[in-house]
Amino acid sequence: MSISPQNANEKGLPQTGVSLLRDVSLPAAVIHEAALLHNLAWMQRFVDAHHARLAPHGKTTMAPALFQRQLEAGAWGVTLATAVQCRAAFNHGIKRLLLANQLIGAANMTIVAELIEAGAEFYCVVDSVANAQALGRFFEERGLVLKVLIELGVPGGRCGCRTQEQVFELARAVNGASALRLAGLEGYEGVVHGNDPARRIRDYARQLVTTAQALYQDRLIEADDPIITASGSAWYDLIAEAFDAAGLREHFTPVLRPGCYVVHDHGLYQDAQQDVLVRRPDLEEGLRPALEIFAQVQSLPEPGLAIIAMGKRDIGADRMPEPLRRYREGGRLSETLDVTGWEVTRMMDQHAFLRLPEAASDVQIGDIIAFGTSHPCLTFDKWRRVCLADENLNVKEVMETCF
Amino acid sequence: MSISPQNANEKGLPQTGVSLLRDVSLPAAVIHEAALLHNLAWMQRFVDAHHARLAPHGKTTMAPALFQRQLEAGAWGVTLATAVQCRAAFNHGIKRLLLANQLIGAANMTIVAELIEAGAEFYCVVDSVANAQALGRFFEERGLVLKVLIELGVPGGRCGCRTQEQVFELARAVNGASALRLAGLEGYEGVVHGNDPARRIRDYARQLVTTAQALYQDRLIEADDPIITASGSAWYDLIAEAFDAAGLREHFTPVLRPGCYVVHDHGLYQDAQQDVLVRRPDLEEGLRPALEIFAQVQSLPEPGLAIIAMGKRDIGADRMPEPLRRYREGGRLSETLDVTGWEVTRMMDQHAFLRLPEAASDVQIGDIIAFGTSHPCLTFDKWRRVCLADENLNVKEVMETCF
Repeated sequence: MSISPQNANEKGLPQTGVSLLRDVSLPAAVIHEAALLHNLAWMQRFVDAHHARLAPHGKTTMAPALFQRQLEAGAWGVTLATAVQCRAAFNHGIKRLLLANQLIGAANMTIVAELIEAGAEFYCVVDSVANAQALGRFFEERGLVLKVLIELGVPGGRCGCRTQEQVFELARAVNGASALRLAGLEGYEGVVHGNDPARRIRDYARQLVTTAQALYQDRLIEADDPIITASGSAWYDLIAEAFDAAGLREHFTPVLRPGCYVVHDHGLYQDAQQDVLVRRPDLEEGLRPALEIFAQVQSLPEPGLAIIAMGKRDIGADRMPEPLRRYREGGRLSETLDVTGWEVTRMMDQHAFLRLPEAASDVQIGDIIAFGTSHPCLTFDKWRRVCLADENLNVKEVMETCF
Repeated sequence: MSISPQNANEKGLPQTGVSLLRDVSLPAAVIHEAALLHNLAWMQRFVDAHHARLAPHGKTTMAPALFQRQLEAGAWGVTLATAVQCRAAFNHGIKRLLLANQLIGAANMTIVAELIEAGAEFYCVVDSVANAQALGRFFEERGLVLKVLIELGVPGGRCGCRTQEQVFELARAVNGASALRLAGLEGYEGVVHGNDPARRIRDYARQLVTTAQALYQDRLIEADDPIITASGSAWYDLIAEAFDAAGLREHFTPVLRPGCYVVHDHGLYQDAQQDVLVRRPDLEEGLRPALEIFAQVQSLPEPGLAIIAMGKRDIGADRMPEPLRRYREGGRLSETLDVTGWEVTRMMDQHAFLRLPEAASDVQIGDIIAFGTSHPCLTFDKWRRVCLADENLNVKEVMETCF
């Protein structure tokens, strides 16, 4: 005999309408609606102001309900990291898919072929003649045309051609494959490192622009509507500025791909956002952190130590989660309790160690703590369902993820 | 229009019968059947030889198909880390559940009440009078009896009473709550640290035994068939030896709770297993690593560098994954290629950086690499489905997980 709800075999399964302070099995992943709506509008406004298109990186959340909101806010398409993620997005109604990665392996190529046959507008990235040839053979046999973007990387970086010579050699190979259509240039500035990163990223963005222009002038771009695309959620302002040049936009549509912006965070991307706002004092209030994990005090075994029922399986641990607010279980929203000086010192799979200051004498087992995350990608993938919460901390919507 | 398979919205969805070297979208999580069967039998034999019962920690895999095999091999029940995990196990036919954690929060207590009402034999852990009182009130209102185990921890450790005085105070509080039934003592030696850990763990195990005996002698144990339980997958031999004492077994059933043993690993637990075999030269061959992640070379952007389409979202990264074997995509099982000197140097969310020695001149984009993991808990939770593979690397069974 199973118990209700019948399919309740995973965590994060609240019903709508219930209170996070009373009715929901914790830990739970919570998105605050007001901050989410702010971020959706903010980034679309930013991208529009720079005459670009937005293809938010869907790998961050893999939540189709969020993809849908991003499209409704004005996004041009959705970026994804794997063929399987593309299939999940397409099956939830996303027609324009940008795989910001190389497409490797016959099984993954088959997935993409089926997407194209079903009507997807699909782009992927190439950085080697060998991969271009493999793709050319596979899609020719299927009688399909595959739009590809050449990836320009940086020495010491991740994927991508390292020189303009390699880009041109690859462009000629793509042009020589009847099943491939060269549709533009792709880069990712997030792997540019070194002193004075802003200068290096501006240099890299300029290199992307000149390389795209050179490909166009040499008539190596085959698509009618080619794109130039880069940008994560840390340096999108520098990419947007470099791509917002009339000479470039005449031939290429600039496409920006931030992902984490949609829920932002309390760590890595909060820091990056401060830097954006310093570089761009003209921007209004920046992004707001929208994602939190709610968890409860499980044990108070020693003075100054609380064990929280939340671990590496519930929240990203690139940095230690940050205690933001505390509530008494079943208490009122307005009665938030102090967490000043509280600090997560260690994470295990299912537990966090929280060091308490001496003043925390009012802490009780069962107290609910809202934790800030760093970063969102490695928090979302811990959850099959996240709660959208209204301003009263009631669950307004349960969003499924597809990891 | 969706594409087939209709519910193909997540990674890890191979059909059975297909080859991991040809037909499966990679990355994929792979359990080798022969090693799995070896481990299932090995640990049950070990536990039987020490006159204990096995309640394997299910949080490691959260794969009901593995729970079922563990029960078929002789396990007494399944241990879990949260109320939601207990519900998932019960809904898959596991009737005896040991929640090796405190049960906190009305929503989680409600889940457990429903399990007990549906026929589960359920145990959980308490370490404070406050929690015992909350449980007592909740289950009395529901008209149910809850079996609890007192947790004895260690100073500087995680949860658990720190002194025998606290244990006795708590035992009296449990005895005073009509809805609670004191059913034994629980500990976890995995949080014992310091110099000469084996000595410290033996001391801790002895403390568990003497505390349980003292509770019995003071007539504070209320259940007819009380248990004493401890042990993860690193020090289970020392716990088993301490619990294998006739005087103890007369009153308490010893229950061991290793979880990672079932698939073992190539890191943390491999090291721990070496130590077990040094301490216990009488044991035959130890556990075998059964879990691997199969992933492909995505890019070869610079001499000496391969980018692998596998990241922190696919494999535990407590230690860097270990390249074990390499295959050509579509190649033969017998033709494994060299990975000597190959080393993962960095992990991102969806990528791994692999440093190649100069000799690796035969590497090709698309090559399939089998990676060893550390540790299994943080690898399983990256997958909704794992492949059980036969000795020919064909998928024999697809196992769902419930995270």
